[in-house]
Amino acid sequence: MVEIIDGGVTTPQGFKAAGVHSGVKYRSLDLGLLYSEVPASAFVGYTSNNVKAAPVQVMMRENSPTLSAVVVNSGNANALTGRRGIEDAISMKQAVANELGLDPIQVGVMSTGLIGRFMDMHKVRYGISRASKELTVGREADNLLAEAIMTTDTIKKECAARVRLGDGTLVYIGAISKGSGMISPHMKVLHGTTLSLVTTDANLSPAFREKWQSILDDSMNMVSVDGDQSTNDTCILLANGMSNGSCADDDPEFEAALRTVMTKIARTIAMDGEGATKLIEVQVTGAETKEDARKVVKTIIDSPLVKSAIFGSDPNYGRIMMAVGNSGAKFSMDDVRLIIKGGDMEVPILDAGAPIFQEERAVEVVRMAMDNKEVTVMVDLGVGSEEAVGWGCDLTYDYVRINAEYAT
Amino acid sequence: MVEIIDGGVTTPQGFKAAGVHSGVKYRSLDLGLLYSEVPASAFVGYTSNNVKAAPVQVMMRENSPTLSAVVVNSGNANALTGRRGIEDAISMKQAVANELGLDPIQVGVMSTGLIGRFMDMHKVRYGISRASKELTVGREADNLLAEAIMTTDTIKKECAARVRLGDGTLVYIGAISKGSGMISPHMKVLHGTTLSLVTTDANLSPAFREKWQSILDDSMNMVSVDGDQSTNDTCILLANGMSNGSCADDDPEFEAALRTVMTKIARTIAMDGEGATKLIEVQVTGAETKEDARKVVKTIIDSPLVKSAIFGSDPNYGRIMMAVGNSGAKFSMDDVRLIIKGGDMEVPILDAGAPIFQEERAVEVVRMAMDNKEVTVMVDLGVGSEEAVGWGCDLTYDYVRINAEYAT
Repeated sequence: MVEIIDGGVTTPQGFKAAGVHSGVKYRSLDLGLLYSEVPASAFVGYTSNNVKAAPVQVMMRENSPTLSAVVVNSGNANALTGRRGIEDAISMKQAVANELGLDPIQVGVMSTGLIGRFMDMHKVRYGISRASKELTVGREADNLLAEAIMTTDTIKKECAARVRLGDGTLVYIGAISKGSGMISPHMKVLHGTTLSLVTTDANLSPAFREKWQSILDDSMNMVSVDGDQSTNDTCILLANGMSNGSCADDDPEFEAALRTVMTKIARTIAMDGEGATKLIEVQVTGAETKEDARKVVKTIIDSPLVKSAIFGSDPNYGRIMMAVGNSGAKFSMDDVRLIIKGGDMEVPILDAGAPIFQEERAVEVVRMAMDNKEVTVMVDLGVGSEEAVGWGCDLTYDYVRINAEYAT
Repeated sequence: MVEIIDGGVTTPQGFKAAGVHSGVKYRSLDLGLLYSEVPASAFVGYTSNNVKAAPVQVMMRENSPTLSAVVVNSGNANALTGRRGIEDAISMKQAVANELGLDPIQVGVMSTGLIGRFMDMHKVRYGISRASKELTVGREADNLLAEAIMTTDTIKKECAARVRLGDGTLVYIGAISKGSGMISPHMKVLHGTTLSLVTTDANLSPAFREKWQSILDDSMNMVSVDGDQSTNDTCILLANGMSNGSCADDDPEFEAALRTVMTKIARTIAMDGEGATKLIEVQVTGAETKEDARKVVKTIIDSPLVKSAIFGSDPNYGRIMMAVGNSGAKFSMDDVRLIIKGGDMEVPILDAGAPIFQEERAVEVVRMAMDNKEVTVMVDLGVGSEEAVGWGCDLTYDYVRINAEYAT
């Protein structure tokens, strides 16, 4: 039984966190540190954008199977910064290693913020030094770290769960994430700019990597705010085994707990998309292949026309089918079913390839369903039994405002 | 020598046009008719969206090598209308055929407007009857037809050219187009919702089809307003041969003239993108393959982050490289070059993988370049010699407004 609890990254045993103001940003917290008392098995997913930020390049090259600490800064993405950026990312690891008495390879690094500016390393080093001294356990520490990695985020993405494994061990999972714009991760585990830190005191072997990819594919990789995949997406799962249980790789309860946590984080990212007023969940069923199901979800949640129609509660459902047609997925025009859900209304739209509602007054029902904080679009492609779920948000005036003056 | 002249679809010999108010729309002209005195060789490009509007389905099935007339309505796309939609599209052809004494297969049909509503055939038939009687030649007729096919368009897309072929024949080309939103055509010629009608009195053989695809690929198919490909995109080229010249299939002057006309139309569509305040031209060079060059152009002009940054003249050029990285195209990070052009300013951005400008004051130069009605983004991928050019527009508050209340 998975139990969602009030907690964060320091809820699992042996993890400490800190968040400080280093001065990279004008006022807010901008540097965070996560630490595990014992080296933790590390499972890392990185952006598949071919322009990879310096910290992503450095971590992919080292590909360390265990990590003891992760340093994260916001305000500067250290992306598109050439050779100097690489040196700065390495220096960040080195500075943490010095402060905490670790081998630099045991230190992970993540950055988020403006692309194309060199890091101010004086400030970053000062921040690392302070954060190292302030590492601690508890909700205050969770919050400081969560705040330090936020950029245009307006709500904190945090979730924790407790679950009893088959062998009787009680393990904890804690997760934080940031991400509001430039969100369309396709993260690949080697061993998603959203940055995520997930901690657990469960015991995991390197073989868990595959399951972690599958969980990312169904959660973080099914979120899209704007279809633009960041240069910095990184998602780190640290499992330090301090619960002293047996290997949880194949424990169905553990997988269920981790899926629940990652799905909640994914939904929160979509809900907090830049300028968003509504969460859009897209559920695709009846697909011939899993990939087809995912393609349809992504094409619908990435369509600016669908997103702005939902913003305005404009019952222009033809646009949803336009997106289905553009996805490249196989479907049967005669059997395809489309339902729009909002609040306690569930409105079927199509009958044998044409909309049921033709009159203005009937269309009002659809508008009422769309006029909710959470709108669900259900599409049955009618050609198979594969399915997928994904999350996005509406396209609003505020999205344009935020991104027309981001660097300013 | 290609000469751009003041003209439209009735400028080439033997073409007549009309545009009337049928009542499908509340007030504006909404039904247009184009007629050629002799059957014209027809070259048609259709949307590759798998949800195809009824008129597209009907025309693709008939695939007539020649057409004598084309009827176009706006206000209703006759898409997502099932079996009844097909019957309505066929009825439109039949009605024109009856009025003009033609075989229905000689009549093309195109629709644009709201998706998912049945046509009001009483009004459409009345419109066809009136338009048939009002067919005429001249700038007035050109204008009426152009107006009848507009939806959210704010400027008329029209262009005409005159060119002397190798055999001494003087031929004319006239083109009109509509399209402002749901614009990202990938039109395939069988024998791009933008709707376009292109007329010429040149003499073309069926073999010209391949060249027409290549011209569409470099013009209409390189325009994107929102990355959403319509269910209705159709682009019809009619060549009636009334110039009495020899076959112009391989005449380089004719191809140049047609390319010039189609490129001008494509740019105008981008410039008039829904809510647009700026035209964005993206020029990619140094690609390994033509397909890579096109992918980079499309990824940049479709990125909501790039588009909103350009709207705000926000010098966030890192986003352009983010898009390059997401395109999937091959490039060399050390050799890639990025230039932003606006007005008479041409600002190089990158040096060996990192931005030249790091200081706020220097960045101002980039802002000034971006603060123009036309912004050109030049990317050299540094790995080959293939290139592509495409056009898009900025993402603005008005795009959101228009599309949040389209059906309303």
